[in-house]
Amino acid sequence: MSKTKPKSAWRHKLHEIIYEADTPSGKVFDVGILIVIVISIALVMLESVGHLNLKYYWEFYIAEWVITIIFTIEYILRIISIKKPKHYIFSFYGIVDLLSTLPTYIVFIFGGHNLLFAVRALRLLRIFRILKVTRYIGESNRLKNALKSSGPKITVFLFAVIIICIIAGTLMHLIEGEAGGFDNIPVSIYWSIVTLTTVGFGDIHPITPLGQFIASFIMIVGYGIIAVPTGIVSSEFTKSEKDSIPKNTQACRFCNETEHLDDAEFCHNCGRRLDEK
Amino acid sequence: MSKTKPKSAWRHKLHEIIYEADTPSGKVFDVGILIVIVISIALVMLESVGHLNLKYYWEFYIAEWVITIIFTIEYILRIISIKKPKHYIFSFYGIVDLLSTLPTYIVFIFGGHNLLFAVRALRLLRIFRILKVTRYIGESNRLKNALKSSGPKITVFLFAVIIICIIAGTLMHLIEGEAGGFDNIPVSIYWSIVTLTTVGFGDIHPITPLGQFIASFIMIVGYGIIAVPTGIVSSEFTKSEKDSIPKNTQACRFCNETEHLDDAEFCHNCGRRLDEK
Amino acid sequence: MSKTKPKSAWRHKLHEIIYEADTPSGKVFDVGILIVIVISIALVMLESVGHLNLKYYWEFYIAEWVITIIFTIEYILRIISIKKPKHYIFSFYGIVDLLSTLPTYIVFIFGGHNLLFAVRALRLLRIFRILKVTRYIGESNRLKNALKSSGPKITVFLFAVIIICIIAGTLMHLIEGEAGGFDNIPVSIYWSIVTLTTVGFGDIHPITPLGQFIASFIMIVGYGIIAVPTGIVSSEFTKSEKDSIPKNTQACRFCNETEHLDDAEFCHNCGRRLDEK
Amino acid sequence: MSKTKPKSAWRHKLHEIIYEADTPSGKVFDVGILIVIVISIALVMLESVGHLNLKYYWEFYIAEWVITIIFTIEYILRIISIKKPKHYIFSFYGIVDLLSTLPTYIVFIFGGHNLLFAVRALRLLRIFRILKVTRYIGESNRLKNALKSSGPKITVFLFAVIIICIIAGTLMHLIEGEAGGFDNIPVSIYWSIVTLTTVGFGDIHPITPLGQFIASFIMIVGYGIIAVPTGIVSSEFTKSEKDSIPKNTQACRFCNETEHLDDAEFCHNCGRRLDEK
Repeated sequence: MSKTKPKSAWRHKLHEIIYEADTPSGKVFDVGILIVIVISIALVMLESVGHLNLKYYWEFYIAEWVITIIFTIEYILRIISIKKPKHYIFSFYGIVDLLSTLPTYIVFIFGGHNLLFAVRALRLLRIFRILKVTRYIGESNRLKNALKSSGPKITVFLFAVIIICIIAGTLMHLIEGEAGGFDNIPVSIYWSIVTLTTVGFGDIHPITPLGQFIASFIMIVGYGIIAVPTGIVSSEFTKSEKDSIPKNTQACRFCNETEHLDDAEFCHNCGRRLDEK
Repeated sequence: MSKTKPKSAWRHKLHEIIYEADTPSGKVFDVGILIVIVISIALVMLESVGHLNLKYYWEFYIAEWVITIIFTIEYILRIISIKKPKHYIFSFYGIVDLLSTLPTYIVFIFGGHNLLFAVRALRLLRIFRILKVTRYIGESNRLKNALKSSGPKITVFLFAVIIICIIAGTLMHLIEGEAGGFDNIPVSIYWSIVTLTTVGFGDIHPITPLGQFIASFIMIVGYGIIAVPTGIVSSEFTKSEKDSIPKNTQACRFCNETEHLDDAEFCHNCGRRLDEK
Repeated sequence: MSKTKPKSAWRHKLHEIIYEADTPSGKVFDVGILIVIVISIALVMLESVGHLNLKYYWEFYIAEWVITIIFTIEYILRIISIKKPKHYIFSFYGIVDLLSTLPTYIVFIFGGHNLLFAVRALRLLRIFRILKVTRYIGESNRLKNALKSSGPKITVFLFAVIIICIIAGTLMHLIEGEAGGFDNIPVSIYWSIVTLTTVGFGDIHPITPLGQFIASFIMIVGYGIIAVPTGIVSSEFTKSEKDSIPKNTQACRFCNETEHLDDAEFCHNCGRRLDEK
Repeated sequence: MSKTKPKSAWRHKLHEIIYEADTPSGKVFDVGILIVIVISIALVMLESVGHLNLKYYWEFYIAEWVITIIFTIEYILRIISIKKPKHYIFSFYGIVDLLSTLPTYIVFIFGGHNLLFAVRALRLLRIFRILKVTRYIGESNRLKNALKSSGPKITVFLFAVIIICIIAGTLMHLIEGEAGGFDNIPVSIYWSIVTLTTVGFGDIHPITPLGQFIASFIMIVGYGIIAVPTGIVSSEFTKSEKDSIPKNTQACRFCNETEHLDDAEFCHNCGRRLDEK
């Protein structure tokens, strides 16, 4: 049945550990990688704090290299354990894994203090690695489905919110003028969004009576229409409660597709056996 | 059956393209106009940013004329393609279309830098042109219906919110006095609305212990009663989910009424055939 | 059947006009009084604005007297048209009507610029007169019922919110100390309420990293638990949708009880005929 | 049936008064203790206000001792009335009771103005004593159940919120740089949480156009996804409405377990009779 034959049993075993979370060793690998990811994110964060970076420069430097080497090993293992490495390399997670590992090597080779900005930005991509782990949480799938099905309505609602904000922002720019901080229309629209979403920084605020009256109106509208997305999602949730199909964490070794049903024997994407040796 | 006979087939064709979105050319026209509207709005916004206006004065000037001419052509086409032009000219969109096109000509003829304010205000009316396109989105109709049916309750709720804000505002004016920024009752009511809707700019805030106590009370009330509009809309949404009638985008050539049922043959407004040639 | 006999037909007629809103003249009276109330409130508000009061002193003075005389006439009519005046005089609205009418006379007799504060406070009681009109709005009754039945749960929730705020406030006082504006525990609790209810004035805000961490935690809690009152009211609303009994605006001439069913012939409070002459 | 025999009837009576709220004397005890707790909390709060502490130093001192003695007596009574004192002493409430009573004695013995901070922190633990009383409120149990069953989903949601905040925070740090107050990544994440939860202090806010654009996006996301926890809790509440089992306030004298069903004769925790003498 199988078209491509696995070269060795250990590669199959490796694939199970790295890409799946059903076996004990698979779980240990996942939890281990999760811990390394969290540490690496905390590291990048703390490095950005000036006085900490001065004080613990060498500690950060060494920790950075340890993490980079762990991520490099993980990247290589992921490539050699999968049958069609391209499926992984050009997937979203493959690119994230590569881009968030490279910076340390680039700085080591090119010196790179003049491209510090880009390097830091790349290193922060590690945060997306966390998403790899979230797909194993059943609740998150149900949340995702409820959001996905209420998506079009929410989009229309947010579209309406943005139109209201554009109208309100231009109105406020005409009323308040440049004295009250409503210097131009884009900044007034920014203020409208800050106000309608009930955030209210206070960096810009109306000072004329008419401006305050219009602002009051915008706030009451914002307070009143927050009910709309809530109503949408509420009714969506009540529906999605009923039909939630249990899934497991098996991943196809050929196309890397996850989200197979518990009793699935063949990949629902490429049709090959999920458990063939 | 038909009382007024169309003078030519091309006028009927033109009406279908401009006022409806069922045919491919009708869709192309709508998407084209939508793009021009979005560009024209972006233009008015960016023009209001002082340093951009100085730098790209001529680019803005030329773009403005191109858009004005497109809108003028659209306006003329809309008038000649409809049987009873008055229905369009004196409709909300007809007035918006006219008023948002005129300013460029006025400035060209009268010089008009001294009436810049009014001209800019008129030009911004273009934002309302976007609403013309929204009626074709099915979801937005359902949102509109849910809001319309929960309207009276929301109104009563917002009426109650305003009364609470008036009482709270006057109370805060009496307690805080003019020191804390609560100079007069209108401004104190403005502060109450800012606080109850959980916006909280911070431009005005209580400084006396009693004022802070009353403010805490207002905030907790605002936090507690936000549930009321949500509850109203939620129950409204669950109802409206069930009965949503599919509508199409045909528009009557005599009275310009839209929102006809899919199998409608006569305009439900003026009674004439929708498809007569 | 009737125990107390009305002395004249006009008194009965007057009662119908003033206390009920079923007849055309009753509606005219209600709308008229509503307009006078709104004007009187607007007047007190505008008087509090310093520069307006200086400019339009005499206009305000005359308007004040006109409104006071209208309210005095209304008060007298209410007393003579009802059978048992005590029911009105010692009711909430009777006391509000009296207290909000008196100040103008007091100032006229005693001079009273030294008791301006109390006078203004009393005059503002007029805002409560608006509530008299709200009881005729059917939707407001349904809102009131939904709020009343979800009252105990909302109370327990707000009680929990206050306990969280007390704990969070004291914690922030210990962490931030007096440098960050968290001078004492009451003011820190005030800050906690401002933060948890997502108002966020910004007059006080944490500056230490630990304080900002705890603040982030409080904000996320506040963002997460706002769902609780909403959930309570939502489920309450779905229930109250079903059982809403239509009521009319007849008022008993003996005990002044309102909220009778449409086909009620006897007062459900004192048992006398509602329509006896 | 009973394995351990009560030594005296008064101890059994005492247990009923202190640990249960079914008998009149039990209710009187609970309300009395509740009042003392509220007074003691108010006292610690007011003591933290500098000028009040200077003015009413002796009044605070005496009140502190009166409350400490009452709490000491309560603590001793709780220990001698229960069969297995260890169950109480090492329970959460037992530790809270002890720690919040000790500070006054410690200051009296050791002088302790140099450990004022720790003492005040311990004394504030009294707030947790209030929770002892809340378990008797039926509504609070239903609230707790609804929150408990929607807990996992809320956790996943808040986890997603935190990831969004980390990504948004790092992005804002890269865009705004150190000029706009986004000095380092942790502080930028703090700002993201302040913004996404719609609190919006305004201590930090974007000043570059791109930063304001991203901020607008974060705010609209925060405004849109607040619907998610609400939808979760709403659907949970509708469910929990149906199945609420009435409970009473009996407490087992052996293991101190509460929350027994009304007709329970044996403790569901340790299996002994609830009413044995």
